[in-house]
Amino acid sequence: FQMPSVIVYGGRGALGRAIVLHFKSKEYRVITIDCHMNEESDLSIMVDANASWSEQKSTILAGLASNAVGEVDGVFCVAGGWAGGNAASSDMILNAALMWRQSVVTSTIASRIGVKHLKKDGLLVLTGAETARSGTSGMMGYGMAKAAVHQFTKSLAEKGSGLPDEVTVVAILPVTLDTPMNRKFMPEADKSSWTPLSHIAEKLYSWTENIDSRPSNGTLLSIKTVGGVTTEENH
Amino acid sequence: FQMPSVIVYGGRGALGRAIVLHFKSKEYRVITIDCHMNEESDLSIMVDANASWSEQKSTILAGLASNAVGEVDGVFCVAGGWAGGNAASSDMILNAALMWRQSVVTSTIASRIGVKHLKKDGLLVLTGAETARSGTSGMMGYGMAKAAVHQFTKSLAEKGSGLPDEVTVVAILPVTLDTPMNRKFMPEADKSSWTPLSHIAEKLYSWTENIDSRPSNGTLLSIKTVGGVTTEENH
Repeated sequence: FQMPSVIVYGGRGALGRAIVLHFKSKEYRVITIDCHMNEESDLSIMVDANASWSEQKSTILAGLASNAVGEVDGVFCVAGGWAGGNAASSDMILNAALMWRQSVVTSTIASRIGVKHLKKDGLLVLTGAETARSGTSGMMGYGMAKAAVHQFTKSLAEKGSGLPDEVTVVAILPVTLDTPMNRKFMPEADKSSWTPLSHIAEKLYSWTENIDSRPSNGTLLSIKTVGGVTTEENH
Repeated sequence: FQMPSVIVYGGRGALGRAIVLHFKSKEYRVITIDCHMNEESDLSIMVDANASWSEQKSTILAGLASNAVGEVDGVFCVAGGWAGGNAASSDMILNAALMWRQSVVTSTIASRIGVKHLKKDGLLVLTGAETARSGTSGMMGYGMAKAAVHQFTKSLAEKGSGLPDEVTVVAILPVTLDTPMNRKFMPEADKSSWTPLSHIAEKLYSWTENIDSRPSNGTLLSIKTVGGVTTEENH
């Protein structure tokens, strides 16, 4: 017998913490991966976000192995961040590199975790962005990184991806999440168009528990909130 | 009076050399950027492909400034490479990092060159890949990097991209190019489905000379060759 388990990559971010608390409330074993410890989880694997892509992967896979994490039901990569800048911005390249580390490095490592730890029928969730389904001239590095995650989701859903059989891969594509950071930096914004973190946490729980509730493998799931009502659209 | 000029990023690769020779035959001033010198061009800016993203950008922009390159008619980023690997490959992360450096780092730096050196009405060409318009389970890092270039092309074509007014941005999306390397590694393949390098070089020349011949700004141009006949499709 093994407790149902999930790994939350980015588990100390706002969305990550909401997911950790939701699964803990459902008596799951929860492992977090983050630059910071999450004491609400059962195990925190710490990673240096400035280490190289390969070093981060090795640290994380070794941490999971040495703590005998074994098989899990879900791997959720909700690490990420935001930075703006167009081609004329002097910091466009630095910001693009940061967005790459935060979204693409983490998503690819999450796929390697999936190969090694996901059960047959498990769930791998990555985080894209609705806006990156088209051009994003004011936030070029962000858009590129999220577009890469979208295409990666399609690759992971194909036969021959290397993931265990019957794993479902979904990318969630929010517009704006209702986080403390967004409330701090956009105090005047219309919050009725922001998606509550609990909505995402509940979705992930439902998909983990009930295979029939999942979007089909490879779905890019746009998540939009209008007037406080959240709806989804599959791509 | 200034000679018509173009910058070829990746100008020592097979496609880059074909472009350099074509524009030289049309009496253009040609500047190459590459890890290796291209003695057929008027000026070679050398870059260490293992340096950081920001360092590469600084080296290249400083090289163009100190050689008084000034305004150019076209910036063509044809740097790139190929590596395979799915999520189960132990070298998937290393290959993804390599693909990122070869395609995304170069494309973003090309956009910064465009901001500083392209004429009004100039042409910026990036290199995507037809296959990355959907999932690429056997070459995950390659697909992600090319998908990022595709979305970046859409961002660069938007108002507010930071590029000079009236610049046209196009990504070429080949299937397989007829290069010496591909002939070496796929000797048995059907070469009548490979696109000749001269076809691409001639297209770039025509687009540079004649604005009306260009695909519309932001086009992802699929380039397919069947039975020796090459056709294009706009996305």
